Amino acid sequence: MLDQFFNPEGIAVVGATPKEGKVGNTLLKNILSFPEQVKGKDNTKQSVRIYAVNPKYEKILDAKCYPSVLQIEEGVNLAVIAVPAIRVPEVLEQCGEKGIKNVVVISAGFKEAGRGGAVLESELIRISDKYGLSVVGPNCLGIINTHTGLNATFGKATPPEGNIAFLSQSGAFALAVIDWSKVASVGFSKVVSLGNKAVLDECDFIEYLAKDDETAVITMYLEDIREGRRFMDVVRQVSKIKPVVVMKSGRTEAGAKAASSHTGSIAGSVEAFSTAFQQAGVVEANSITDLFDFSLTLSRIRDVKGGIAIVTNSGGPGVMAADAIEESGLKLAAFDRRTMEKLRDLHVANFYNPVDVKGDADSEKFGTALGIVSAAERVGAIIAILSPTAPIEFDKAGDYVLELNDKKPIIPVFMGGETVMRAVEGFKKHGITNYFDPVRAVKALCAVDKYSESREKVSAPPPYFKVDRKAIKKLMELREREEAKMGIGVEGFKVLEAYGIPAPSYGKAETTEEALGIADRIGYPVSMKIVSPDIVHKTDVGCVKLNVRREEVKETFFEILHRAEKYTSARRIEGVLVQQMIEGGKEVIVGMKRDMHFGPLIMFGLGGIYVEVFKDVSFRIAPLSKDDAIEMIKSVKAYRILRGVRGEPMSDIDSLVDVLLRFSQISMDFPEILEADLNPIKVFEHGKGCYAIDFKMIMGERK
Amino acid sequence: MLDQFFNPEGIAVVGATPKEGKVGNTLLKNILSFPEQVKGKDNTKQSVRIYAVNPKYEKILDAKCYPSVLQIEEGVNLAVIAVPAIRVPEVLEQCGEKGIKNVVVISAGFKEAGRGGAVLESELIRISDKYGLSVVGPNCLGIINTHTGLNATFGKATPPEGNIAFLSQSGAFALAVIDWSKVASVGFSKVVSLGNKAVLDECDFIEYLAKDDETAVITMYLEDIREGRRFMDVVRQVSKIKPVVVMKSGRTEAGAKAASSHTGSIAGSVEAFSTAFQQAGVVEANSITDLFDFSLTLSRIRDVKGGIAIVTNSGGPGVMAADAIEESGLKLAAFDRRTMEKLRDLHVANFYNPVDVKGDADSEKFGTALGIVSAAERVGAIIAILSPTAPIEFDKAGDYVLELNDKKPIIPVFMGGETVMRAVEGFKKHGITNYFDPVRAVKALCAVDKYSESREKVSAPPPYFKVDRKAIKKLMELREREEAKMGIGVEGFKVLEAYGIPAPSYGKAETTEEALGIADRIGYPVSMKIVSPDIVHKTDVGCVKLNVRREEVKETFFEILHRAEKYTSARRIEGVLVQQMIEGGKEVIVGMKRDMHFGPLIMFGLGGIYVEVFKDVSFRIAPLSKDDAIEMIKSVKAYRILRGVRGEPMSDIDSLVDVLLRFSQISMDFPEILEADLNPIKVFEHGKGCYAIDFKMIMGERK
Repeated sequence: MLDQFFNPEGIAVVGATPKEGKVGNTLLKNILSFPEQVKGKDNTKQSVRIYAVNPKYEKILDAKCYPSVLQIEEGVNLAVIAVPAIRVPEVLEQCGEKGIKNVVVISAGFKEAGRGGAVLESELIRISDKYGLSVVGPNCLGIINTHTGLNATFGKATPPEGNIAFLSQSGAFALAVIDWSKVASVGFSKVVSLGNKAVLDECDFIEYLAKDDETAVITMYLEDIREGRRFMDVVRQVSKIKPVVVMKSGRTEAGAKAASSHTGSIAGSVEAFSTAFQQAGVVEANSITDLFDFSLTLSRIRDVKGGIAIVTNSGGPGVMAADAIEESGLKLAAFDRRTMEKLRDLHVANFYNPVDVKGDADSEKFGTALGIVSAAERVGAIIAILSPTAPIEFDKAGDYVLELNDKKPIIPVFMGGETVMRAVEGFKKHGITNYFDPVRAVKALCAVDKYSESREKVSAPPPYFKVDRKAIKKLMELREREEAKMGIGVEGFKVLEAYGIPAPSYGKAETTEEALGIADRIGYPVSMKIVSPDIVHKTDVGCVKLNVRREEVKETFFEILHRAEKYTSARRIEGVLVQQMIEGGKEVIVGMKRDMHFGPLIMFGLGGIYVEVFKDVSFRIAPLSKDDAIEMIKSVKAYRILRGVRGEPMSDIDSLVDVLLRFSQISMDFPEILEADLNPIKVFEHGKGCYAIDFKMIMGERK
Repeated sequence: MLDQFFNPEGIAVVGATPKEGKVGNTLLKNILSFPEQVKGKDNTKQSVRIYAVNPKYEKILDAKCYPSVLQIEEGVNLAVIAVPAIRVPEVLEQCGEKGIKNVVVISAGFKEAGRGGAVLESELIRISDKYGLSVVGPNCLGIINTHTGLNATFGKATPPEGNIAFLSQSGAFALAVIDWSKVASVGFSKVVSLGNKAVLDECDFIEYLAKDDETAVITMYLEDIREGRRFMDVVRQVSKIKPVVVMKSGRTEAGAKAASSHTGSIAGSVEAFSTAFQQAGVVEANSITDLFDFSLTLSRIRDVKGGIAIVTNSGGPGVMAADAIEESGLKLAAFDRRTMEKLRDLHVANFYNPVDVKGDADSEKFGTALGIVSAAERVGAIIAILSPTAPIEFDKAGDYVLELNDKKPIIPVFMGGETVMRAVEGFKKHGITNYFDPVRAVKALCAVDKYSESREKVSAPPPYFKVDRKAIKKLMELREREEAKMGIGVEGFKVLEAYGIPAPSYGKAETTEEALGIADRIGYPVSMKIVSPDIVHKTDVGCVKLNVRREEVKETFFEILHRAEKYTSARRIEGVLVQQMIEGGKEVIVGMKRDMHFGPLIMFGLGGIYVEVFKDVSFRIAPLSKDDAIEMIKSVKAYRILRGVRGEPMSDIDSLVDVLLRFSQISMDFPEILEADLNPIKVFEHGKGCYAIDFKMIMGERK
């Protein structure tokens, strides 16, 4: 279906006008420049028919003009609309009636323009649903297919042909990129300006482009992601086939604030986006430079199977590249003995990596060294750095790069201005980007490395634990009627119990006799805490007592009640929780916040200072697979503490993995839980398990 | 003196040749292109005289040729030498005799070429010393002064005129930069290829360029810094006057390894360089892109006095800039009420920061918004972002930027290709760089911010504590004769005592009676440790006992000796250290490693996991000022633990500052100490001081 956006046989330009400078004029001109188009009715060859639609004219430029799409005699499969917003619903209705399924709404004045526009946008969605229309926009620049020559935008330029598909949520940014792409020689297969994403969004086009032979990389600029779960599912699948490179603005608090006033959408949590991107296999870029550097490199290099080799005629830039490789976490290739021998025989200054052929080397010597290195085992990719010394002929050196690039991917860093221009042009013809700065070459290779790593990762499905969901559900509903916030009460622990998350023995006491009975059953010492939905920070108001001995139980019971009653906002006191004391162990925290776009965002970290001061935490979006849970635990720096430092025994990681998985299931089973924390969990040495000492939940409305 | 390198009246090109393609030919051609040169003897106006020197010719190109510099009749104040390395000493002698003080040795084949070349380089240094010659190189590209038109290099290009002085330790990199500078329109005031730095190094030129009116920024590419202390002193002073921007290769372990095989110099510690750079006020760049982005921006903007404002016609790129501002630690400007009112009256989409004038805004509306923002208080700099929408005329918009740039520094981000070219050219004429990527603009502003912060910092001189140095010196000498490594023995604590660093009471016992006597004096419990220079890890071999009570002293004494004797490498056992037990307190570590270039590198961190797992440490090069010491403590993340978490009292920071300062003085007073550690220091709450529990030193040879 979406294919007809890019390969239509009949196009109607609704709102076309002969008036120079108007959107409807530029748009028609661009579409008419379609190399094999046939204007109006007099089609002589089976090719693209282009119609103008405007009741005031009979012909505009070279196209026959109709009062509405309904009057067009032949079939139309793409309508591009550039009439005032207020008239768009009517035109859409006509498209529906005419049987035009693919529509690009260029017109602005919808959701982005305030309340009135939002009403129009709802109407647009309603009509699209009614006729089953696929709509790009509204409020967009249009679409481009460079491979057929279709430019259905009102921009002044068409980008060069290439194998990168570019989706942009900002029309202005798309304009800038297209304009720049010509001087930067960055080629695109397709360009889609997504606009307000009223009907079609990035997910639809990612799915389409996954199967598009002309597209090797899907590159996106996004301002929001509304269907977070679908985005993750789609990208997780598509990124196994081709790279999905995304720059998302609003990544920081300041950016998100600016973005929400710009797009009018409420920002999800900053962590959720980068976590979702990572889990789905998105290659994330944090600048425009990175966005296109990564895309261009990924459009021809998909893997770095081995270390990075550097071949250079100038030591300094070679060292710069080596620095960048270490800083980016890549590895310099270690050469085998034969390779080193061959390089030594070539009389290079350094036959380790980086290979320095020296400033007096000519292009041939450089090419020979490049050949030796590209034949070496354990070399995954090569950065070929050349300074414009007198003996170097860049054209010749460039030929070596082009020739050897099939053996091992080579990124050229031919450093210079005019001198290297011709070689750089030669590279571009083969889709190879030259860099002046070796650091950019390394950064791009690092993106390739991350992509191939995530592509090769096979995720097992999340496990499912059998639980008595009905009992819990009942409990939740009961609770929900009473209040939105739910404290540590007995119900909280019942949830843990039902899901098999180990917690200390406990009981809720309403009298001193009950308290003593529970404590006698548990064994001493015990801890005692108030049960009240109105008291969140129990410790702060003196409503938590630890290490209570038998003779202290009664006194403590009254003391806790007394303090709770003094606490002015505590109206509902349900009793006192008597709990088994768990001593020793290391403290970890597992938390969940439900992100409005992506769902439950699970957090893991070591308790106290590590979370609070070092922000040493890891995130994943639920549901978690076992590998996710293991990764979450291992990726915090303080994992070494769990592994055991200075001869300590290893902590029971398996039990933490189990808790994370069961906690993930809770968050999936109950969408009404907005936030939940197991804080602290005390974990003991391997084989001795862990205990969730405290549990907090914040409930929201059921959906 | 160095001024005659750049403004000579008579230049001799030794090794000039009529043979095309040879270094001596290109060099002479470049020098002859001097716009106001006067060739040979027939000078008609008081200008630059250029002589060729080569015994085989009478005239080369337009220059009269002499057998040696001695035959030249007039005065010569700059000789540029391009003869084979083996002949350089002879030529240098002749320069000395002729009274030519400034010499550039282009010739390669010196230290970089192995042992024979190193001998020649020593000879070069000897002759330079003898005649007091200032020598650039050897093994260099030469020098350039764009403002007079002097190009004394053998490269093919001359860079555009500008106000950035560029020093490069790599000739090949200098070649690449000069070639690139023409297409990138990056202008230089002076270029110096430093070569092997046999006589003159970066410090000499930094001092010279500090006073050069044509230079606004000193930009360097360095591979090593041999005179580390001098470098720090020079840059510390010069960076108060103008920015010193440095890219140093070999910043990482991998890079340093590659660099040492390239330059033949032994790398100092990786931490020492970045610490020294930071302390001296260097603006450090980690890529070529950053090196020139930072330099170009600093060449016109020295301060960001306020927050950053963003004015844009497209929301998306505005948000990108906001993201980058938060990530870089800069602040978005908060507008005052009047500014917001004015912006609201202008009908912009967002009158908070970023200001979005919307896609339908023309250049005038954009300029008006820019005017309002540039007049606003609390705005330190503006990033002006424009997409190529239909209503925008970039030339007009550019004029607004140029006009308002005097009020507040503006960095233009005019996004596009051909469309923005003319405006970009206009900016360049005013020394303003346009970016396509807003993230680069933000990064450059961040460099400005860091520079101005470091420039404004006033460092008090390090304090000096009175100590009995003679006694310590004697002790050190005694110790040194015995062995290079020195354990925790009594002497170590005597050093601390002499320098006023608090430590537990102690005594060295050779018999059980002595041990008991000391322990009785100190009070119980005590700790007991072996005193032996052969045992470094005392705890590991069971030679440390804590919490020893009176009745255990004798038994413990023998147990420690027994274990020490079983430890095979322990030949010298001096006795048992009996020490006061210090219980409680928080553990911090203070360490020192002597860097071969920069001297004592002092480290501070919190003990155990924070140093080992989180690498949460700070570094400074001694001597420390009081501010340095305070900064060191406050800049570790775990400082919050010292400040007190969860209601704990604040630790005694003053006492730690005092220890750092005294420790710094030890490291300055005794160059023979190569490494030293106070590990752990136990620090108590404010007013209760700290104690160095253990002290280790590694001694080297006295210099």
